[in-house]
Amino acid sequence: MDISKELLKKIVFAALSELEKSESEKLAITVNVSARHVHLSREHLEILFGKNHDLTPIRDLMQPGEFAAKETVMVIGPKGVIQNVRVLGPVRNKTQVEISKTDGYTLGIDAPVRQSGNTEDTPGCVLVGPMGAVRLEEGVICALRHIHMPEDIAREWNISNNQFVKVETCGKRRVIFDKVLVRVSPKFVLEMHVDTDEANAAGIKNGDKVFLIS
Amino acid sequence: MDISKELLKKIVFAALSELEKSESEKLAITVNVSARHVHLSREHLEILFGKNHDLTPIRDLMQPGEFAAKETVMVIGPKGVIQNVRVLGPVRNKTQVEISKTDGYTLGIDAPVRQSGNTEDTPGCVLVGPMGAVRLEEGVICALRHIHMPEDIAREWNISNNQFVKVETCGKRRVIFDKVLVRVSPKFVLEMHVDTDEANAAGIKNGDKVFLIS
Repeated sequence: MDISKELLKKIVFAALSELEKSESEKLAITVNVSARHVHLSREHLEILFGKNHDLTPIRDLMQPGEFAAKETVMVIGPKGVIQNVRVLGPVRNKTQVEISKTDGYTLGIDAPVRQSGNTEDTPGCVLVGPMGAVRLEEGVICALRHIHMPEDIAREWNISNNQFVKVETCGKRRVIFDKVLVRVSPKFVLEMHVDTDEANAAGIKNGDKVFLIS
Repeated sequence: MDISKELLKKIVFAALSELEKSESEKLAITVNVSARHVHLSREHLEILFGKNHDLTPIRDLMQPGEFAAKETVMVIGPKGVIQNVRVLGPVRNKTQVEISKTDGYTLGIDAPVRQSGNTEDTPGCVLVGPMGAVRLEEGVICALRHIHMPEDIAREWNISNNQFVKVETCGKRRVIFDKVLVRVSPKFVLEMHVDTDEANAAGIKNGDKVFLIS
């Protein structure tokens, strides 16, 4: 391509302006903020809360079947403790603790940014509930920001499962999040999840809209 | 402009790829993370630390003349206390407390995102030092992310004082920060400041490089 950089810039700028005009054609996504939380295995649930204990749902989350439970646990790391960390249901195959980098400083745990479920070689912690304690060997992560996308919308926008996309926010602290993972399933409702650090950095509140940049 | 959106997208994509090749021509900026801190007026310094007290520098900051002081204060809001908040020197005309949104939740103070010095209609707090306490009527802010830029670099990159620019980061949590304020002065050293929420959200550590998108 034999074209000067200045001319290229002008072309990009003109083209981007044209594209911006079709703002209404951007996919708007509801964003919700994931505060620190814990997913428990059946085994760990019973150690922490007692034999045959079941989680008590107090609030449905946006994704079908997911709920915030009444139960909370203490999360303990080498440098500190965070109390009243919400358990989310239903129970999972593996216990997983999702914290922010800020929480990591409090706890003294350097949790890597990972997709939910991918806990290989992650640090552990101690969980304490009213009936017992669990020493996790691994499972503490900072959740990779992601979008839940139903299949029909994914088809319409030509997006495949596990694709990474860019997402832009609005407001005074506007950012463009790069490397946002899209998870596609017919069971999903369209929703983006960020953690509290990301929400605070971008001035995002629960229920705000963000926009997918295709 | 009578051109299909698809074609436009292709043009933008091709042009962007060409521009990306000139990556090395992007302005690299050292980014440092501003943890919560306090700037004190002479009057408040003396109330908190005693008559004729002077700040004791323990570490020079990157901007000439600025330093971290040995002195720390307690910052108190309606919902909580944060201890050992570093005082930065030298003294200023007006006391200003810079916290993150996360700190704001701890303190119960909804601090707006503001440029340093612009504290009109911001919330206050109580500061406590070893010799006294001060009730601030205003002055608690989340600092607007910004770049200190020396005049020669500003000229070279055609950027004026108080202009807003976009800045991109690297890594797994790559973001593009929009609306980044540039402050130009012959006294400045090239440096970007973000707060701890922004650093954690973008996976930024002190001394990392970010890149200005012109």
